[in-house]
Amino acid sequence: MKLWGGRFAPGAGGQAQRFTASIGFDRRLYQEDIAGSQAHARMLAAQGIITPVEAGSIIDALDEIGQEIGSGQFTFALEDEDIHMNVERRLLEKLGSVGGKLHTARSRNDQVALDMHMFVRNGAAEVVRRITALQSALVDRATVYQDAVMPGCTHLQAAQPVLLAHHLLAYFHMLERDRGRFLECRARANLSPLGACALAGTSFPIAPELVAKELGFDGVYANSIDAVSDRDFVIEFISAAALVMVHLSRLAEELVLWSSQPWAWVELSDAYSTGSSIMPQKKNPDTAELIRGKTGRVVGHLMAMLMVMKGLPLAYNSDMQEDKEGLFDAVDTVNGCLETMAGIVGSLAFNRERALAAAAKGHTTATELADYLVRQGVPFREAHAVVGRLVRLALSRGVELDGLSLADLQGASSCFGPEALQLLDPVAATGAKTSPGGTAPANVARALAVARRVLSER
Amino acid sequence: MKLWGGRFAPGAGGQAQRFTASIGFDRRLYQEDIAGSQAHARMLAAQGIITPVEAGSIIDALDEIGQEIGSGQFTFALEDEDIHMNVERRLLEKLGSVGGKLHTARSRNDQVALDMHMFVRNGAAEVVRRITALQSALVDRATVYQDAVMPGCTHLQAAQPVLLAHHLLAYFHMLERDRGRFLECRARANLSPLGACALAGTSFPIAPELVAKELGFDGVYANSIDAVSDRDFVIEFISAAALVMVHLSRLAEELVLWSSQPWAWVELSDAYSTGSSIMPQKKNPDTAELIRGKTGRVVGHLMAMLMVMKGLPLAYNSDMQEDKEGLFDAVDTVNGCLETMAGIVGSLAFNRERALAAAAKGHTTATELADYLVRQGVPFREAHAVVGRLVRLALSRGVELDGLSLADLQGASSCFGPEALQLLDPVAATGAKTSPGGTAPANVARALAVARRVLSER
Amino acid sequence: MKLWGGRFAPGAGGQAQRFTASIGFDRRLYQEDIAGSQAHARMLAAQGIITPVEAGSIIDALDEIGQEIGSGQFTFALEDEDIHMNVERRLLEKLGSVGGKLHTARSRNDQVALDMHMFVRNGAAEVVRRITALQSALVDRATVYQDAVMPGCTHLQAAQPVLLAHHLLAYFHMLERDRGRFLECRARANLSPLGACALAGTSFPIAPELVAKELGFDGVYANSIDAVSDRDFVIEFISAAALVMVHLSRLAEELVLWSSQPWAWVELSDAYSTGSSIMPQKKNPDTAELIRGKTGRVVGHLMAMLMVMKGLPLAYNSDMQEDKEGLFDAVDTVNGCLETMAGIVGSLAFNRERALAAAAKGHTTATELADYLVRQGVPFREAHAVVGRLVRLALSRGVELDGLSLADLQGASSCFGPEALQLLDPVAATGAKTSPGGTAPANVARALAVARRVLSER
Amino acid sequence: MKLWGGRFAPGAGGQAQRFTASIGFDRRLYQEDIAGSQAHARMLAAQGIITPVEAGSIIDALDEIGQEIGSGQFTFALEDEDIHMNVERRLLEKLGSVGGKLHTARSRNDQVALDMHMFVRNGAAEVVRRITALQSALVDRATVYQDAVMPGCTHLQAAQPVLLAHHLLAYFHMLERDRGRFLECRARANLSPLGACALAGTSFPIAPELVAKELGFDGVYANSIDAVSDRDFVIEFISAAALVMVHLSRLAEELVLWSSQPWAWVELSDAYSTGSSIMPQKKNPDTAELIRGKTGRVVGHLMAMLMVMKGLPLAYNSDMQEDKEGLFDAVDTVNGCLETMAGIVGSLAFNRERALAAAAKGHTTATELADYLVRQGVPFREAHAVVGRLVRLALSRGVELDGLSLADLQGASSCFGPEALQLLDPVAATGAKTSPGGTAPANVARALAVARRVLSER
Repeated sequence: MKLWGGRFAPGAGGQAQRFTASIGFDRRLYQEDIAGSQAHARMLAAQGIITPVEAGSIIDALDEIGQEIGSGQFTFALEDEDIHMNVERRLLEKLGSVGGKLHTARSRNDQVALDMHMFVRNGAAEVVRRITALQSALVDRATVYQDAVMPGCTHLQAAQPVLLAHHLLAYFHMLERDRGRFLECRARANLSPLGACALAGTSFPIAPELVAKELGFDGVYANSIDAVSDRDFVIEFISAAALVMVHLSRLAEELVLWSSQPWAWVELSDAYSTGSSIMPQKKNPDTAELIRGKTGRVVGHLMAMLMVMKGLPLAYNSDMQEDKEGLFDAVDTVNGCLETMAGIVGSLAFNRERALAAAAKGHTTATELADYLVRQGVPFREAHAVVGRLVRLALSRGVELDGLSLADLQGASSCFGPEALQLLDPVAATGAKTSPGGTAPANVARALAVARRVLSER
Repeated sequence: MKLWGGRFAPGAGGQAQRFTASIGFDRRLYQEDIAGSQAHARMLAAQGIITPVEAGSIIDALDEIGQEIGSGQFTFALEDEDIHMNVERRLLEKLGSVGGKLHTARSRNDQVALDMHMFVRNGAAEVVRRITALQSALVDRATVYQDAVMPGCTHLQAAQPVLLAHHLLAYFHMLERDRGRFLECRARANLSPLGACALAGTSFPIAPELVAKELGFDGVYANSIDAVSDRDFVIEFISAAALVMVHLSRLAEELVLWSSQPWAWVELSDAYSTGSSIMPQKKNPDTAELIRGKTGRVVGHLMAMLMVMKGLPLAYNSDMQEDKEGLFDAVDTVNGCLETMAGIVGSLAFNRERALAAAAKGHTTATELADYLVRQGVPFREAHAVVGRLVRLALSRGVELDGLSLADLQGASSCFGPEALQLLDPVAATGAKTSPGGTAPANVARALAVARRVLSER
Repeated sequence: MKLWGGRFAPGAGGQAQRFTASIGFDRRLYQEDIAGSQAHARMLAAQGIITPVEAGSIIDALDEIGQEIGSGQFTFALEDEDIHMNVERRLLEKLGSVGGKLHTARSRNDQVALDMHMFVRNGAAEVVRRITALQSALVDRATVYQDAVMPGCTHLQAAQPVLLAHHLLAYFHMLERDRGRFLECRARANLSPLGACALAGTSFPIAPELVAKELGFDGVYANSIDAVSDRDFVIEFISAAALVMVHLSRLAEELVLWSSQPWAWVELSDAYSTGSSIMPQKKNPDTAELIRGKTGRVVGHLMAMLMVMKGLPLAYNSDMQEDKEGLFDAVDTVNGCLETMAGIVGSLAFNRERALAAAAKGHTTATELADYLVRQGVPFREAHAVVGRLVRLALSRGVELDGLSLADLQGASSCFGPEALQLLDPVAATGAKTSPGGTAPANVARALAVARRVLSER
Repeated sequence: MKLWGGRFAPGAGGQAQRFTASIGFDRRLYQEDIAGSQAHARMLAAQGIITPVEAGSIIDALDEIGQEIGSGQFTFALEDEDIHMNVERRLLEKLGSVGGKLHTARSRNDQVALDMHMFVRNGAAEVVRRITALQSALVDRATVYQDAVMPGCTHLQAAQPVLLAHHLLAYFHMLERDRGRFLECRARANLSPLGACALAGTSFPIAPELVAKELGFDGVYANSIDAVSDRDFVIEFISAAALVMVHLSRLAEELVLWSSQPWAWVELSDAYSTGSSIMPQKKNPDTAELIRGKTGRVVGHLMAMLMVMKGLPLAYNSDMQEDKEGLFDAVDTVNGCLETMAGIVGSLAFNRERALAAAAKGHTTATELADYLVRQGVPFREAHAVVGRLVRLALSRGVELDGLSLADLQGASSCFGPEALQLLDPVAATGAKTSPGGTAPANVARALAVARRVLSER
């Protein structure tokens, strides 16, 4: 008999049991559910709604149930639908009618919302920790290769020489924004919905703030209907997760590119690579590709959850049961990808020579020449045109800009002096970018120091 | 040692094993994988690449492996990564080096593509069957309530009276389009990629068409690179799945609305309803809500898969490993929702009296009056304005249009005769809609007969 | 001749001009672009890179160009591609070679990022204002109907009586969270990327913090590659926009439901309704439906932008040009929907009588009976079962719970006393929900006072 | 006064006019709308519902209105909401009350559905034409470079040498599937909804099949409610559009990669490239990047439309007004991208020497060695391991496989004979892949011939 079955003929919900039961996945919330129930029981006793003895026996029995589940000895029943009813059924088995007092002044609507809040809160905290670990790996690697020069690209075309460390620090800053989003998501999610009951509150003299305090919440929902209707915190978490995945996908793409034969600036360690079942020579950047690919599923979960909530009337609707699997998978995916990427980055081997050689290709110091002319008084737009013609000249000869002579330069503009030739070295070019945030080594050294301090203070 | 590990130091892929292994979910393809391998072995023998004896022992051993997996006795190893390598490893255990001959002229790239094609093909066929079952339930229900009248709505405002059967048949036709899409998806997916090997084909004298024929394919891919790069068939399946879910969500929404207290035209059977943990009176249309909600996850999978494939260079990339979980879940979700909806519809109780009473509310026969005037020679646009003023009059008196007198009508237009008053009955109004495709009972009876014939001929 | 054309033969970019030009939509950024250029010119002069006289003439000419565009007199040229080049071309026409000095130490990469940051910042501020306006409309309406009782629903089934004001305040709180997200998005977006130039910074002695300060930014990007690669702020804005749209869609759905004939608790004002071209009686909640529908486009823009950025190598790529139209439309859509919803809510007429009558249907006070039994010492789970049986009894007689006699109640449980019958009044039931956040009138009055104070302090 | 305003007080819909009016974008349907109205008028006359003279004057006036719109002389009024009402208003101005007869037996619900069907049908036909044009460009380019060899990649790692022509033909086949989807979409969309009127059909003796035939439809909707509720055809079109965009994005990604400095196998023509505002040397594959980026917006439109339709009760709802802008943009985007990609491909310069040199890197012929061993009787799995060790040896010496001696090979396996060394040439390796669908030149030549015949027969 269903615990809610009084009003129904026997067999209610039967046909569709397999379809509607959530116990297959919401059992993951068992720790949250039990902690929440224990806090609720304690509050009921504190408020005189049940006796301290009743509360004590409920709390102890819930401890036992938690251990049964944790050790794999608990038998979940499909007909009890979800983790809440499975736990309550077991409580009734253990305590008899006293167990039936736990659900006083509570509904599954606020109970599941409570569990989900705790889960999101913990999930966000774990993501924040793993972001820091990846940031550390980036900073360490940037430190190891602090002097390495590579061609910075725009449109995947060689643009200007930059320090590898500068490039890696760009990801440090992206992740810093991600961290901010998860912290804010966590803060906004850290309110307890318990006490909203079905949707309207209750006539029992409950104290929701006691439950909230015991469970580490910053406060309680101000409005009971909002408390049980709200899944913003799930969507906000997955939104933040989607964005960090986009960041990881960009880094992954670069690692795939950079470890391809034409580039060959980096090599993933064997531990993060796989081979081919048919081609004996293959060493594939499998982990990076998979991280890139997993961006899709997190964005898919975001789409799913926005679509689930769209147009739902208040308060709880069964559609909202769909909030769990996507969230669980998003938490696992983001954490797994962050952990794996930290491992990839931490064991990355960078080929300084090939990168520097590449930085000297593609006329990457053309902007230096233009800027030189500007310092000689030529308006930038004219300087750009002059150097553009020099590039055409070099292309027609099949040489790089440093294959041109001073006479060639002066043929394009009389403003060129011999010191202009020295600007064509990629290492010199990076050294010149001393503007705030620019790639000059001194800037990058300072940025690394700041990053290290930030990380060490966490 | 990895089966692909010759080129690597020991421990390759180790760190990331848990992250990259797909055996946790691709084991679902074991039957397809084994059938594909057996067909491949048979072809290798037919072409003289291996001996008939070798092929025979491979095929027998694969049968055994299939039984081991089917009976739960097979031990999957994470370090063997995927279903392909797990099976091959077991084959090697059973046969020694002869087992090592199976992967001749084959790569996991074409192997997994083969498995996925078979899975999609079968999945589409199952969806097609379940669509028919739901269509049958709709037609049956429409037949039972063939004379029931309800207010057809636009903008969820009462618009014109229609037959419930006509309304249910609208879903029959939506599903008929879905069926067409799945059949076409199946037809387009029914090509065998095996023989493409890594991406370039092979120098062995294979006969891919033999494999294709044995496995029930209509042909083979014309281009080996396309064969291993293509996941169109996965995306096309999920696209069709998303659309059928949208249809189900519309029906689900209507069932939720119609079973709410203000409407109360339908009641879901207890078997498809659930109760509340707190509110003893509740009977919730849980299954319909959940179907509506599950639309999100299928659309999410579509988003995910489009995002995974976007911008991927040819040929196989590890990102494509992400094609499986979403597809599997889409197949399960669509089939589960179709089955559940067929059960809901098949056991639906419709309240004729409440629906007919509702059809008489909201001035739903106003168009009849306007059309009457047109038949008296009044241009439609003027007739519309005249009747609009009559509606205002009725509203101001707090009555329906049939609460107006002939004098009221004639006050608005002298063209009204006493027969106009007879147009205000909702049953008469449905009877008048005799245009092709319209809701007149004779039309609907014909449409039901056609639908029954179509279904019976499947 | 293209302003960047020095290196190319004539005609570069020609064929694809219509395809690649963004001037058709990025002209919307002209004010941001001109303000940014003026700040840049002022900084160049402050740093001695150009002369004060040059800066002055550039700034004045940019003022003129701004006026030309504002007054519709400016001729945009497709061949100048975008707003930046169109403005610079005009500057060159006005000032000759001095105009060519503006682009010193700047690239379109950091320039467009600057414009977009300013746009997002302003867009977020406008959304925040409109959220407040809608919140005010909700609070006003809740105040007007402070005593109105309606059936709160879960699963769209009548659950428990609640105050309409309590229900409307749930939206107040949702919007409060939206507001927080937009404020945080704005704060995170309020960094200036100018000075990053192409991607590496520059060798000119620029002072990016001067530009930032003049334009009202809180600071500058710490890393030049990040500065030009980052579109997080666009995605974060659209994410927040998607969520506020989901909230609006829920309210819109409820308005559509509540104004349907079976409910008929609310009526939208004529100003926010439309009629039918064929059915003279129709009054459609067109605006609410359209708000609900427009949720799709904003979520679509979010998906688009996440997909655009996925897997993009650093730094700027032309794909990122796709950041504009979706953002512009998201800003317009959210603001338009917030404004329209504020208008709808502000002019909403609520039918107290019909709502109260509905609240008495559906056995909505069943929980009160169960809670009564708990107060008599019956464990809640047993009390739930007792009342469930009473609901079955009432259903079998075709009456509501208040159609049962005391004897009926006592037949189910001897714990019922005569005072139990008084619990069945919906108004009394709302009054009893005095728990924090519950729907009791005193709670709601306090919540309204808090909301009014919060709004008045903005 | 609104044409539907009879029932309302003056000013209905006023406040929200700007928000709800669709005339800003649905004017694009004016040709479809006028053609549909003319066919409707002709049918009304044929059925005796209006007189031939009335029909004639209506048809002539609609011709004039079409010319007014086409020449830009028509003044669209926001207060007339949409293209349908703008045209009808003008018709009334021209013809007086006779104009008011056109809307007999018609609603905007079926009228707009008719327009949209015609638009999708035409849009699909145009896409099909442009797909053929891109396929032709691919086949032409493959023919020009029929002998060019490049390293086929998996995981972006050099895998096996393939013919460029073979690689380009993979796209030919992807596009062939796209073509099939659009043709089927067109076929399924080619039913006329006119005659459904508001949702229930009509009491006028209309002949919807006459309208359908005149407008080139294959038939009429069988169910009037379905006819006005259905937007499957829009979603199916955008689904097919999303998939062709994914294909284009993959080709675009490859063009971006291949034109980057490390690869430098292809160079886009100047006509499809752009420069940089700051870096004079840059030549960016702008058009390819933009095509890749535009994949996002089409997928975004798909998500938007699925979300709009999810959970909508039958029949027409204003949400469905959102079907237009996304569809229009999808049509324009897909056609623009197909056209641009055809131009890019048609003018692509491929560097045979660099590609061939790359094909010799990365041990791309390792599989040949393994297959050689298989032919000597070594089981493939063992052969794979032997060659894997040879690759390790080569890597340790910093050479390619062809840098190993026969003695080296024989040190790994005594089965190697001197002819094994000849397998290491990439051109020879492509020649050996003679399996059906493989990359051997003879295969590719046949495939090209088939492709040319297929294209020539269209």
